[in-house]
Parts: sequence; structure tokens; C-alpha cells
Amino acid sequence: MATRLTAEAELVIARCRELADCTEEPGRITRTFLSPPMRRVHELVGWWMREVGLEVSIDAVGNIRGVRGSERRLIIGSHLDTVPNAGAFDGILGVVLGIALANECRDVAVVGFSEEEGVKFGVPFIGSRAVVGTAFELMDSRVEESIRAYGLEPGRLGEARMAGAGYFEIHIEQGPVLEHHDLSVGIVDAIAGQSRYSVTFTGSANHAGTTPMHLRNDALVQCAKWILEVERTARATDGLMATVGRCEVSPGAGNVIAGLVRASLDVRHKNDSVRRSAAAALIEDLDATLLMDVPATPMDAAMTAQLADAVEQEGYPTFRLTSGAGHDAMVMAQAMPAAMLFVRSPNGVSHHPDETVRLEDVEAALRCAKRFVRSRHG
Amino acid sequence: MATRLTAEAELVIARCRELADCTEEPGRITRTFLSPPMRRVHELVGWWMREVGLEVSIDAVGNIRGVRGSERRLIIGSHLDTVPNAGAFDGILGVVLGIALANECRDVAVVGFSEEEGVKFGVPFIGSRAVVGTAFELMDSRVEESIRAYGLEPGRLGEARMAGAGYFEIHIEQGPVLEHHDLSVGIVDAIAGQSRYSVTFTGSANHAGTTPMHLRNDALVQCAKWILEVERTARATDGLMATVGRCEVSPGAGNVIAGLVRASLDVRHKNDSVRRSAAAALIEDLDATLLMDVPATPMDAAMTAQLADAVEQEGYPTFRLTSGAGHDAMVMAQAMPAAMLFVRSPNGVSHHPDETVRLEDVEAALRCAKRFVRSRHG
Repeated sequence: MATRLTAEAELVIARCRELADCTEEPGRITRTFLSPPMRRVHELVGWWMREVGLEVSIDAVGNIRGVRGSERRLIIGSHLDTVPNAGAFDGILGVVLGIALANECRDVAVVGFSEEEGVKFGVPFIGSRAVVGTAFELMDSRVEESIRAYGLEPGRLGEARMAGAGYFEIHIEQGPVLEHHDLSVGIVDAIAGQSRYSVTFTGSANHAGTTPMHLRNDALVQCAKWILEVERTARATDGLMATVGRCEVSPGAGNVIAGLVRASLDVRHKNDSVRRSAAAALIEDLDATLLMDVPATPMDAAMTAQLADAVEQEGYPTFRLTSGAGHDAMVMAQAMPAAMLFVRSPNGVSHHPDETVRLEDVEAALRCAKRFVRSRHG
Repeated sequence: MATRLTAEAELVIARCRELADCTEEPGRITRTFLSPPMRRVHELVGWWMREVGLEVSIDAVGNIRGVRGSERRLIIGSHLDTVPNAGAFDGILGVVLGIALANECRDVAVVGFSEEEGVKFGVPFIGSRAVVGTAFELMDSRVEESIRAYGLEPGRLGEARMAGAGYFEIHIEQGPVLEHHDLSVGIVDAIAGQSRYSVTFTGSANHAGTTPMHLRNDALVQCAKWILEVERTARATDGLMATVGRCEVSPGAGNVIAGLVRASLDVRHKNDSVRRSAAAALIEDLDATLLMDVPATPMDAAMTAQLADAVEQEGYPTFRLTSGAGHDAMVMAQAMPAAMLFVRSPNGVSHHPDETVRLEDVEAALRCAKRFVRSRHG
């Protein structure tokens, strides 16, 4: 049995690498919404789906779906688009594993979403939003033109909706937590909510040689104190992540005291009230503008407990973690119970050509997921 | 006497404003090395010099000089070029005040240096370096072409050298110290030395949502700690100024942990060993590159004491301060004793159209300087 599953895991990885050859840019993996290389992806994924007895179709936004049985189906999926200069596994792994799981279920749909990353139009989740019926508001002339250029009909968007009894997604972690704990897989308890702000610090841009320290108002010193406060607060709060990733100094010359600094603040937590109160404390008395407030999406408790049972029965630790990044499961959870399994990301690397997976981890995911979907939909 | 001096100070300010109309850019004051508006400046300054009985000439780099008497002369001067979008007083005030002081001296030369700011060729002090005989190394085809285009002869650079018994420069402070102490004038004890570094902090550019706080290596957090250490060190050391004015974050996106930060460090002090040991401590164990190490220039002790006597006898506090910015006196001090008097800069503003002077401060400078030059060269 181990041998067969190892071979299956090898095939999964080989298929992900095969799809990676379908790219807009030779030498790099880049495959945006309904770009030309998506045709070959649909061809390959379609073959693999038919091979396991699924009925294949492509909906109005370019999601490929392989279906069998009734609407009491488990939908298993992830996305087939990539960021520019991507790795081979972000999204793709979940679709290819979905095909490998299809024969464990009576009623099943495996879906390869056409668009999750939001690269082409700056709006993510076109694929999964079409499936839950909230993509209408994303349609504009540019999106419709892309759909028509691919040979699809934007007018049939309504038919992309799909009923299901639950949604299951396997995805690479894209972070270092599983590796840090030396774990192959982890059970996602929630997708974190996000607050994003732009924060401005104002000082006086004076001559670095003629302005004594006690007569300065240095915007960069103000910002540095705040960056350390952000760091301290996040480290002191369990599960909180807070990041200042942008910091632009004006005038930005070595011999001029900073007169103005514009910085970013990104705060994430699985509990919205923890996130919002931390964010509010961090911007208190500052010149800050709220750019984004996305609530957290908890995974379905019962479904996640079943997934944890399967992981445990396969002999793996039932480690739970929160996803700091968004996933299609966030959208699908609006329409049905959803659960997610993370696979270790070596070195925590993702959105980069070095993104990879370990064979033993893909095998572990296959083993746990097969037991899970069998127990639920077998 | 107060009335006559007030009128003289008014004339000095009016002349500075008249020279401000000689500009390369309508509506802004910009006058670089030997630019066309310098001809009108030379014409006006030449008239004013002749009016007080000086013999006027223009040397090979475009310094204008009005001379009377022997080589035991006091050279009084400052510069006539400006930064882009400058104020009316930086440099200019010292030249115009020099003309007002000429009649107090038997042996005198008033000099308007053609180039101090270094705007045109990125090399400052062409004017004063020609006078002390160290400008030969600055000559290249671009500089020589500028000289020829103005109608001067680069071959006569050697004749620009001028002997003198001392150099005296009045300059606006360009900083907030005199205003902070409510003083019209201050006696410069030294021109600070400068160390400049480029410092690089290296972290790991990871996803702000998937990398928990304890598994991060955030280059911007490293840099923020260092910025506060720079600030603490400078505040703890008398007379030390240390500035981080540049801070460039890579990749610089709100949702990505900083992988690399490049920052600047500018350290100044009148005592070179204090400056160098502070700078060495601040870059210890860091990836830092030395960009500049300019030693401090102390003003002449005896001459400065005479200047202080004059200030005291005129009834003003004898407040001493260090110049954090470079001045022609820094170059002239290589060849002869030098002293400098600072005039208050309202709001500490310089290199900006809002740069100004107060009438009472110009009158105070005139009063103190007249007594000083009379006592020394009258």
C-alpha cells in the first residue's frame, strides 16, 4: 500500500511539473486568467479527469470541472492560475490531488479554478466567486473581453454556480510553520482576517548638519519607534501577525532629516475582534488611512474535526494552524461547509520558482485526504 | 549711530534681494557656477565694491575681488552661487556685508566666491580652492569649458591665488540654534567633520500573512532598532549629530516582510575622534560602506577670541557654536587664520525660498563685525 501511494504521490508531483510547462513566459511560470497556456492546462486536466470517470466541462469564467453523482457532492478544488514567475505547486497541487481523490467519493466534483491570484485585473477569486454566484459584480468589459477571447460566453455566468455538500481544498502552506514543527500536513482552522493601513509620519525636513538633536523633528525616528511597537505588540499577542513592509522616506537624502515617512501596516488574525483591536491600538493617535478590512473565515468545525480524525487515524499529528493568506476556500465557505489541509512548504517558500513540495508530504496528504473524503463521501 | 547702522543693514538686505533677481529660473533663485546671471551679479557687486574704493577684478574661476592696500590684508568673503530654488542670503549676505565692512580696514580684500555649493559639477568650493591654490585638481574639460564660455582663461588659474593675514566670513546659520537661544549672532568655533556611510540590513522577504512573528527575519525591524540606537547615541553625546535620512525597503510591498533595507548614516562633530569613534560604534557588526570622511576644521583661536571680544563689547552674548555645514572658511583656513560669525536663520530655514534674515540681526552682525575688523585691521 505504501508503494502504491508513493507512486501516486510521484505522479501528482510529475503532473504539477507538467502543468508548469504551460506558461506565458518561456523559462518562468506565469499563467494568468484565461491566458493562452490555460488551453493546454485544460486539455491535460480534462484528460486526467476523464481518466478517473469524471464528466468534464468548462464554465463561463474558465473553471474546469469534473463531476460525478448527485448534488450531495463534495467539491474538491483549488486554482490553476499563477502569479508571475511562480512555483509549480501553489493552487495546482490541490487540483491534481483532487483528481487523485475522485475515486474515493460517490458524489464528487473536482474543480480547477481559473483565477485566484488577481494578477490580471487586480481582483482575486473570479473562479470561486463564479461557482458561489458572487462573480457578477466583477464583470466589466475587460473581464468579458478576456472570456470571449478564450471562446467562452460571459452571458452563461449564471450556469457556473454549483451546489455541493461541502468544499475541501489541499494547498501548500506557503509559510514556514509546518517545516518548523517538522510536520508533513496541517489542518487549517481559519483563514485570517486582514486589516491594512497607510500611515503617515510628519516631521521637519532640516539639514542633518545644522540641526542639533534636541531641535529635531525626525519623521523616520517616529516611524522607527512605531515599527518596534508593531513588532512588540504582534509578538505579545498569540497568533497575531503585524507587518510594516513599506516605508518611504521624504526627501530621502543622507544629509537631510526625514520630513515625511509613509509606511504600511498589515495586521492579520483568525479572530476579527483581536485583529481589529490590535490594529486600532497600533494606529491610535497616528495619521492612518484604512485600506482594507477583510473578516476572518473560520473553517467548518464538524468537517474540520472529521479531517483531523482522518489525519490522526493515518498516524500523523493533528496540528492546527491559521492560514494568513487568502484561498478559494474563503469564498466557497460562504456557500457550504469548507475544510482545508495544508502541505509543508520547504523553506516556507512560495510565489517563487524555488517553491516545492516533498514527496513524503504529498504522500501524507494523499493518505489523510483519501481517508477523509471516504469517511465523508465514500 | 543706531539709525545709520539700521539704514546700512537695510541696504545690505536690499542688495541681497537685488542679487536674488539674477537667476537662471524665472520665479526661483538658482545661480550655479558661471551661469549667465552671474554676469549681472558681477556687475552689481563690482559697482558696490568700487563705490567703497576697492580695486575690482575677476579671477580665472570667476571669483570677484575688491582689493585695497597690502598683502597684510584681511580677506572678507563668502559665495555668490546658490543651490537650485534657493533663498537670497546663503553666501550672498557675507559678500554684501564684506563690502559694508571694507572701509573699516586699511588692508582688505572682499571676495565673492564663484562656486561653493557644488551644484554644477558635484564638486564644491571651486572658488575658495582657487584662492588657496588647490583648485588645479578640480579642473577638467567640463570646468574649463564653463570658464571659457564665461570669457575667462583657465590657464590663468595660478593668478587666482591670494595672500592674506586672515579670513573672515559672515554667514547665515542655516540652522535653528541661534533662534532657539534668541540670539542675533553666534561665534563659530569649528566646522564639524563628517562621516557618511551606506548601511545594508538583510532579512528574509516572506509573506506577511503566512510567516509567524517568531519565524521572521525582518530587515526593517533590524533597521528600526538601529535608527533608535543612532538617535540615542547622538543625544547622549554632547555636540554629536547623527542622522539616518535615507531608508529604502525592498521589496517594499505592504504584504511582504522586508528582505533588504539600505539606509544612510551621517555623523558630524567638531572633534574628529569623537565623531570617528561614535561612527565606528554605530556601524559595528553591520554591513556598512564608508562614503565620506571629512575632518573637522577648527577656527583660529586667537582670531575667534578677538571676534568674541568685539561681540561682547557691542553688548551681545558671546555664544559659540559649531557649524554642521561646510563653508568657504573651511578651505581658507588651510592657508590662513580664519574666523566666522553666524547670523540667526529665522525658523532655521535655508536652501529654500523661505530663507530670510531679520533686520536687527543683520545690524548686530554689522556692528560686531565692524568693531572686529577695525580692531584687527583698522
